[in-house]
Amino acid sequence: MSAATPAVSDDVWSRAARIRLLVTDCDGVLTDGSVYYSARGEEMKRFLMRDGMGVERLRRLVGIETAIVTGERSVSICRRAEKLAIHEVVLGADDKAASVYAMAADRGLALDELAYVGDDVNDLGAIRSVGLACCPADAMAEVAAAAHYVCRLPGGRGAFREVAELLIRARIETD
Amino acid sequence: MSAATPAVSDDVWSRAARIRLLVTDCDGVLTDGSVYYSARGEEMKRFLMRDGMGVERLRRLVGIETAIVTGERSVSICRRAEKLAIHEVVLGADDKAASVYAMAADRGLALDELAYVGDDVNDLGAIRSVGLACCPADAMAEVAAAAHYVCRLPGGRGAFREVAELLIRARIETD
Amino acid sequence: MSAATPAVSDDVWSRAARIRLLVTDCDGVLTDGSVYYSARGEEMKRFLMRDGMGVERLRRLVGIETAIVTGERSVSICRRAEKLAIHEVVLGADDKAASVYAMAADRGLALDELAYVGDDVNDLGAIRSVGLACCPADAMAEVAAAAHYVCRLPGGRGAFREVAELLIRARIETD
Amino acid sequence: MSAATPAVSDDVWSRAARIRLLVTDCDGVLTDGSVYYSARGEEMKRFLMRDGMGVERLRRLVGIETAIVTGERSVSICRRAEKLAIHEVVLGADDKAASVYAMAADRGLALDELAYVGDDVNDLGAIRSVGLACCPADAMAEVAAAAHYVCRLPGGRGAFREVAELLIRARIETD
Repeated sequence: MSAATPAVSDDVWSRAARIRLLVTDCDGVLTDGSVYYSARGEEMKRFLMRDGMGVERLRRLVGIETAIVTGERSVSICRRAEKLAIHEVVLGADDKAASVYAMAADRGLALDELAYVGDDVNDLGAIRSVGLACCPADAMAEVAAAAHYVCRLPGGRGAFREVAELLIRARIETD
Repeated sequence: MSAATPAVSDDVWSRAARIRLLVTDCDGVLTDGSVYYSARGEEMKRFLMRDGMGVERLRRLVGIETAIVTGERSVSICRRAEKLAIHEVVLGADDKAASVYAMAADRGLALDELAYVGDDVNDLGAIRSVGLACCPADAMAEVAAAAHYVCRLPGGRGAFREVAELLIRARIETD
Repeated sequence: MSAATPAVSDDVWSRAARIRLLVTDCDGVLTDGSVYYSARGEEMKRFLMRDGMGVERLRRLVGIETAIVTGERSVSICRRAEKLAIHEVVLGADDKAASVYAMAADRGLALDELAYVGDDVNDLGAIRSVGLACCPADAMAEVAAAAHYVCRLPGGRGAFREVAELLIRARIETD
Repeated sequence: MSAATPAVSDDVWSRAARIRLLVTDCDGVLTDGSVYYSARGEEMKRFLMRDGMGVERLRRLVGIETAIVTGERSVSICRRAEKLAIHEVVLGADDKAASVYAMAADRGLALDELAYVGDDVNDLGAIRSVGLACCPADAMAEVAAAAHYVCRLPGGRGAFREVAELLIRARIETD
């Protein structure tokens, strides 16, 4: 592994090498959890270019697609997903674990072929369902306790890219 | 208590277990105190999704409502409150302690059944009135000195959620 | 002095006690130097509510007014100044020291009755002209070297308020 | 060198003294990599006033122009470049090294008379082509490993200004 990827346990490494689909929460993972309000209501979210590069590299280098599952219904998420050519975005998900099961079934994948990144307690069901569960460095403590891999970087500041590079390297070095 | 909640003193714990209503300042607590100006004037404030989850969990798990008291008159606050189904928002409050008294009286609550979160000197009256007074980690020193509980996390970066989880756990473990 | 004000040298304290007018740069002092651009050009600047409270407390408690001198011509600065009832804003200042001299002359004040807060090399002339020269914690090194007082807090994160509280306390305790 | 410029190796110093053109990536260098999305799509980027001062000082003090090369097609970058009188902006660059070669050829400059600042893996080709390759403190590890000079400051928080001041001092002290 390059200096870019922190050393990970053998367990995380072998879990990562099996992944075919990366599912991620939005707020707190692809963003730092901030939401900007104006007099018109929710106005903006802040994303990170470097995470976008992670989505593209996952697709191009190892053929892994990214999907987004969120409890919110913000159109800004859809605009960001369009930019990154992410085709599957589940908005208003009340039960994120159910969304994850459906995504696996639709693609004929086993649950241990899915990775998930989430940061808050409504991600716990999905976190406990997948082969590789990850969270940002600043996730809620319950989530960090349940995850296989806690990122060095916080949400919206590189956590997603860190997971992407882990999956890329695990796949390339294992193949 | 889970790892999510820092250890608190017996005094704070017993104060927290009595709370029925959580009143909070907006700027510097629900936000990091930033206000974004354009050529049209005040344009945006930045809130945290994770604090919103705190409002919902307080309501659903232990039946504690949240109210907002602010000296400002920003409509963006009202939009955020609507999103979180917070029904009581006092804008332009010159005397926050008076607002807190009125809220207690309206609900037939004693002052020691109210918690308050504030960060600046105009919160001191309210801070000194309630059963449990809290402030973000980056509050003004006078406020931190007067508060029963100083959060580990700063305003707009998790302080409100930290108070919410404290109230939830104190209520659940005490009942 | 309260815990809110760091200990300052006798020299800074006696300089602070003489101040009648506080002049401040905008970008990097009242903001963290960030400027937000959209497809329409410069769109927003980010200010801090707590600094606004400093402007009000200076006026109300010790009768010190605040003025803004900036090399920029951003209307957002004017909107923020209006909100804080700051009546003197010099935009597009090529020579900030000259603006400072003019402000002193207009009011019949000596230069040692003025304080100035700035963060970058185009503030050096003004920094070297006034009775009390201050800069944020993250000012350019040349500016920090020339200032009488380097704030503990960075620009847009409390530096201005720190100067305001210093002036208030020096005036109150000296009177 | 003043306290503003960290000590650099003799190699970096002699490389810096030869530079005639500074080429920079945008996202992650002139910004912290954040991109703000609304329901309308990409809305804003955040730049730093202090970096703008670096562009002006390079031009005025030592006659070095700045050019921008980016893989993105954001109009906000053009607006920021206009404000700073940067005349050469390459948007949608698929091959940044090729853009760098073309810029050198257009001006009759040797590649060791160009400096480049970049932060992510798509900057590596350009990083390896120029006389002085720089990156922000928070660049991807592969980029930091390939750069001659890793800034003390991160992208959008002063990295560009740090490079600008290095070039100014190297040129002035060497002439």
